[in-house]
Amino acid sequence: MTGASGASRPAAEDPGAPGDPAASPVGEFELLERLAPRLAPDGPELPVGYGDDAAVIDLGGAAACVTVDAIVEGRHFVWELSTPDDVGWKAVAVNVSDLAAMGADPTAAVVALGRPADLGASSVEALYDGMAAAAAHWGLDLAGGDVVRTDQLVVALTLLGRIDPARAVRRRGARPGDRLVCVGSLGAAAAGLELGIAGHRTPEPLLAAHRRPRGLVTAGRALADAGTHAMIDISDGLGADLGHVAHASGVAIDVWGASLPVPPEVWEAADALGKDPWSLVCAGGEDFALVAAVAPDDAAEVARRAGAAEGVPAAVVGEILESEGEPRVTLHLDGQRRDLRRLGYDHYRDDDPRDQGGPT
Amino acid sequence: MTGASGASRPAAEDPGAPGDPAASPVGEFELLERLAPRLAPDGPELPVGYGDDAAVIDLGGAAACVTVDAIVEGRHFVWELSTPDDVGWKAVAVNVSDLAAMGADPTAAVVALGRPADLGASSVEALYDGMAAAAAHWGLDLAGGDVVRTDQLVVALTLLGRIDPARAVRRRGARPGDRLVCVGSLGAAAAGLELGIAGHRTPEPLLAAHRRPRGLVTAGRALADAGTHAMIDISDGLGADLGHVAHASGVAIDVWGASLPVPPEVWEAADALGKDPWSLVCAGGEDFALVAAVAPDDAAEVARRAGAAEGVPAAVVGEILESEGEPRVTLHLDGQRRDLRRLGYDHYRDDDPRDQGGPT
Repeated sequence: MTGASGASRPAAEDPGAPGDPAASPVGEFELLERLAPRLAPDGPELPVGYGDDAAVIDLGGAAACVTVDAIVEGRHFVWELSTPDDVGWKAVAVNVSDLAAMGADPTAAVVALGRPADLGASSVEALYDGMAAAAAHWGLDLAGGDVVRTDQLVVALTLLGRIDPARAVRRRGARPGDRLVCVGSLGAAAAGLELGIAGHRTPEPLLAAHRRPRGLVTAGRALADAGTHAMIDISDGLGADLGHVAHASGVAIDVWGASLPVPPEVWEAADALGKDPWSLVCAGGEDFALVAAVAPDDAAEVARRAGAAEGVPAAVVGEILESEGEPRVTLHLDGQRRDLRRLGYDHYRDDDPRDQGGPT
Repeated sequence: MTGASGASRPAAEDPGAPGDPAASPVGEFELLERLAPRLAPDGPELPVGYGDDAAVIDLGGAAACVTVDAIVEGRHFVWELSTPDDVGWKAVAVNVSDLAAMGADPTAAVVALGRPADLGASSVEALYDGMAAAAAHWGLDLAGGDVVRTDQLVVALTLLGRIDPARAVRRRGARPGDRLVCVGSLGAAAAGLELGIAGHRTPEPLLAAHRRPRGLVTAGRALADAGTHAMIDISDGLGADLGHVAHASGVAIDVWGASLPVPPEVWEAADALGKDPWSLVCAGGEDFALVAAVAPDDAAEVARRAGAAEGVPAAVVGEILESEGEPRVTLHLDGQRRDLRRLGYDHYRDDDPRDQGGPT
């Protein structure tokens, strides 16, 4: 027999409370490491377990590549800059990007929609229009979902795709000597968001990059077919995401700043915002570019083909080196070196409308 | 070129605003019907599309049965009654129940966790402990997920299972003459929640039914193997969920009140709460019992076997009749008839900590 205990929400006495370093992304990554023992590693029925862009599940006769990313009001979009239609599109696109980073082929999605009381039915329809448009664009089925009342709009979309488990490209697998290939440009989404929030005039390509990102499925498949050793999509920022690759592959990574594909509007945006452009380029996040470790002889040609397949910039932007113990990601620029993982950390703020970096 | 428009969250000028009837479950079902054109119906690559307990996706060589349900603070649980561990368990169990209702075999889950700032790392670990315990209980892999900052705890869990698409049991398919079989008891979870919130002494079985529901996978498989014509799990309440079966199958349903499996504590709870016990039994929701339409000659034996397989009560509780136009679900009790769908509607309140009834 138990009555109401009078107990309230569990106390935030432990790391993760507001203002606590654990609420920062480094803390968040630490938290994810603390959670890892509860999650399933690779196994016979789980060819790719916890800790990659997507999991791969053996269903007996075929495998499903599956990922879930949630889009949250005030973190991944603001109503000042995005319509409900944009939000629906983005919920699909960010997940398409995760499957692209495995070399998978998106097939179907289900969505859990947390709907605040003041989001009217027409807005919900518009949000579904955006999801349906993205689903049509990438040739996948929107197969259903759940609607529940919440205080804040949350769109948690799960995407399934087809994959040959033996050919899934992972975060691990990068080899010393590999070249780093980047397909898609960097800094545009963060520049669009920051200019828009600050009320500056915002070039349409930057705003579009924030509002309606692309997921580079065709490039991902081209990179996988070319025998890419490791791959990730850039959601948290180049520094943080290459940190995952360095950690998973047990390597160091050099990035050549002058080679990174950065639209000219991003430099102008950094000027207008009075901020270090490299924080937009390397730590802004939500670029949904793909970065891949490719054997050195093939890299330039592989980059060219993958970029051409999507009509986006692509380049060889660095190289993989032997590990020196701790994972290291270094930006080389004008003869100087900067720690790219730290750049990501420095510019991550708790009020920043971005993800906290949960790997699937 | 576009600057910040100054526009705020889309206006709630349309149905769905607070106080609007559209915010009630009937309105919500109407909304889901308005959304349906954006969702994928059954097709060659989607053996079961929008509108069932789970979707079935053809992956070429095998199929995935997939469902997503979100557990939200203040709607599906309150911290006064549940620990983070309970919440994690429940997030898995409610989805297991959806797969059970298709006759599928749960295989792996991914989770999008919306974490409020004041939910500490230890509480998140406890929540994952609960998910891991449930995953172990049902023999599935917790394959990863996403963590994002939200104002309110949201656990959107997606569950995948194995299924033979040709044998998936759906909401449609109930035939006039079939008997209605119920496996699992009714009213306990709602009684536990309402007693607990009201601060009454709460019998442990009722509280456990609310906190840590069961998902009747073995019973679901037994019912599917027995050639069940239609099936659903009771999440929104017997009346609302049988309404879905009546609608999808184009039939009327009679429910025999005296035959429903109701634990004795539920009658006592209704007394203590001073409320109609049938609102707890038929509209309380979160029972996660299975109800199935079974050929009349087999029904009693099928019910007995499915209940025995799980160690839960099971009974023949009604019958399927020819449709009379509108879907109809009628409770027969002491010579009286009550409209079970209306009973569900009457007792659904916007501040009620339950789902708004999203089919997957």
